[in-house]
Amino acid sequence: MDAQLAIGVDIGATNTRAAIVTRSGQIVVRVQRPTHFLGMRLLPDALVELVVACVREVEAAAGARGLPVGVGSIGQIHRETGRILGTTADYDEYVGFPLRDRLAEALAADVWLDNDAKVAGLGEFRCGAGRPYRHLVYFGLGTGIGGAVFVDGRLVHGASGLAGHLGVVSVDWRGPIFPSRTPGPVEGYASGTGIARLGREHGLGAEDQPITSEEVFATAAAGDPRARAAISDAARALGVAITSVLYVLNPEAVVIGGGVAQVGEPFLALVRAAVADCAMPEFVRTPILPATLGADSGLVGAAVQVWEA
Amino acid sequence: MDAQLAIGVDIGATNTRAAIVTRSGQIVVRVQRPTHFLGMRLLPDALVELVVACVREVEAAAGARGLPVGVGSIGQIHRETGRILGTTADYDEYVGFPLRDRLAEALAADVWLDNDAKVAGLGEFRCGAGRPYRHLVYFGLGTGIGGAVFVDGRLVHGASGLAGHLGVVSVDWRGPIFPSRTPGPVEGYASGTGIARLGREHGLGAEDQPITSEEVFATAAAGDPRARAAISDAARALGVAITSVLYVLNPEAVVIGGGVAQVGEPFLALVRAAVADCAMPEFVRTPILPATLGADSGLVGAAVQVWEA
Repeated sequence: MDAQLAIGVDIGATNTRAAIVTRSGQIVVRVQRPTHFLGMRLLPDALVELVVACVREVEAAAGARGLPVGVGSIGQIHRETGRILGTTADYDEYVGFPLRDRLAEALAADVWLDNDAKVAGLGEFRCGAGRPYRHLVYFGLGTGIGGAVFVDGRLVHGASGLAGHLGVVSVDWRGPIFPSRTPGPVEGYASGTGIARLGREHGLGAEDQPITSEEVFATAAAGDPRARAAISDAARALGVAITSVLYVLNPEAVVIGGGVAQVGEPFLALVRAAVADCAMPEFVRTPILPATLGADSGLVGAAVQVWEA
Repeated sequence: MDAQLAIGVDIGATNTRAAIVTRSGQIVVRVQRPTHFLGMRLLPDALVELVVACVREVEAAAGARGLPVGVGSIGQIHRETGRILGTTADYDEYVGFPLRDRLAEALAADVWLDNDAKVAGLGEFRCGAGRPYRHLVYFGLGTGIGGAVFVDGRLVHGASGLAGHLGVVSVDWRGPIFPSRTPGPVEGYASGTGIARLGREHGLGAEDQPITSEEVFATAAAGDPRARAAISDAARALGVAITSVLYVLNPEAVVIGGGVAQVGEPFLALVRAAVADCAMPEFVRTPILPATLGADSGLVGAAVQVWEA
C-alpha cells in the first residue's frame, strides 16, 4: 500500500472514532460517535452502519474518497478471516461475525481489521514511544488489559492472530478467576476494573456506590493509605507480568498506554520499581516508557495497519 | 554456511558432549566427558581445553577437520559478544568470560554459542517435534527450566539474546523467591529442583535424605497421595506458565523437552489438562507435544546453529 493517507477507525465499548491519518501518524480530521445508542448495545448490522457513517463523514470533511481503511475493534479477531472470535460476555451476537468483509463490502474499500489494543500498540511502535525500537512490548491498560508484541521490526500475530493477549498473562496460579478461565490474570489487578476491585478489597467505596479506578487514584493522591496500598498492589502485579514478558521476549523497551496509563508518572514509577525489584539484572535495564499518542494510539494504529500489509 | 556436517557441543553442569551432526539432525559420531573433574568445578580455561579435546576426538573418529562448531552452554549468553553474562551462583568465575571467542581461537574454527535450552529448542524446531511449525514455544525441564521461542520460522533472540528465558516466568506475584529475584518462577515448581521441593512440602523424604524429583515421580507412580499432589501442583504451575506464554505468542504448538519431560506421558497429560482448564477457548487447542530427540535435543541444536547463520 503506497497511499500517503489512510482512514483509521477505533471501535470502543463506549465510542467509535474515525480519522484520516498521514503515514507519519498525524491526524488530519476526526469524528466520534457513541457506540451505544440510548444505552442499548449495538447489534452487528448497526455497528457496520455506524462505522460506514463515520468513514463517510471524515471523507466528506477532507474531500477524499476511496482511501484504504484500517479498523481496531474490541474483542478477539481472527486475522485471516477478519471474523470476531469472541468478546466480553455482553456481546454474544458478535461471535463469528465477519466484520472485516462486511465493512469492505459496505465501504467498497480495502479494509484491515485487528484487536484494538494490538493496533494501539502498532500506533505506538510506528509513530509513538516505540519508534526507536525493533523489539517492543506494548501493554494497553483500559477497562481490561490488551497488548501487542513486536519482534525484529514486525508485529507478531502468531498462529491465528491472537498473539499479544497480555491481559490474561497469569500472575497467580492459584488466584481468583475474573471473566476469563485463567487464574490470576494481570488484568484482574492492573486494569481499570482490577484497580477498582483492589480498592474495594482494601475497604474503599460503599456497598451501594462501588469505587472506580479513577477514584482509587484520586484517593491515593490525597494520601489515603488504603488507596495507596491498592495502587501499590496493582503496580506490583503489573510489574511481575511485565517481568515475565521480558523473560519471554527480551524486548528493547516496554511501552505502557491506554486510559489507566494516562494517570502518568507516579503509577509508572511504581511499576518500574516493581520490575527493578523482580527482574534478573540483565532484564532490569529495559526502559518502561509511557505511550506518547495518548488516547489516539488506537486511531493512529488502526490506520497504520494499511502500511504494514 | 552450506557445510553438510557440523559439530555440536553441549556443555552441561555434569557432562560435556560433542557430536558430528548432519544437516537433517543425524548424529554420526559422539563423545562425552565429565564437566567436573574429581568433583571440583572446572575453571573457564580448563573448560575451553575440555571442549577442544571433545571436538578433536570426534574429528579424529570421523576423519574430518575444520568443521564449523556450534556450542550450547549452561548460563546466560550474550549473543553478540559470545560472552557468558551469568550462571548459577556456583560459577562466578564465568561471568563476563568470552567463551565463544576463546573457543574459536583455540579451535581455529567458526564457533556459534548460545544458551543450552535455547539450542535444545532449536534442535527440536528444525529436526524434532517442532519441524511442522513456524510459530513454536519450547520448554526444557531440567534441574532448572529453560526455553526457546520461534516466530515466523525463526528463533527469537531479542535485544541481547536472552529471549526464551522461560524458567523465570512468574506464576505467583507474591510467591517465594528461588535463586533468581523473581517471585514464584515456574522453575520453582516444575523443574527437577522444583518438583523435589514440592515433594518435601508435601511431606516426602527425610530431613537427612531429601527426596529427588525422580523419587517423587516413582512414589507418585506407586500411588502415594502426597507424591501425586506434588506432581499435580507441578503440572498445574507449569500449565499456567504455558498458558501465559500462549497468550503472549499464540504459537502453533508447544514442545516440552529436557530430563524431567522424559518421564513422559502421565506427566504431560496432567500439564495438558491444566492448560485445558486455564486457557481461553481459542488457545486451548494448541498441541502440547513431547520432544522427540530426547537427551540429544541440545547436541543436535548446538550444531544446527551453524545453519541458522
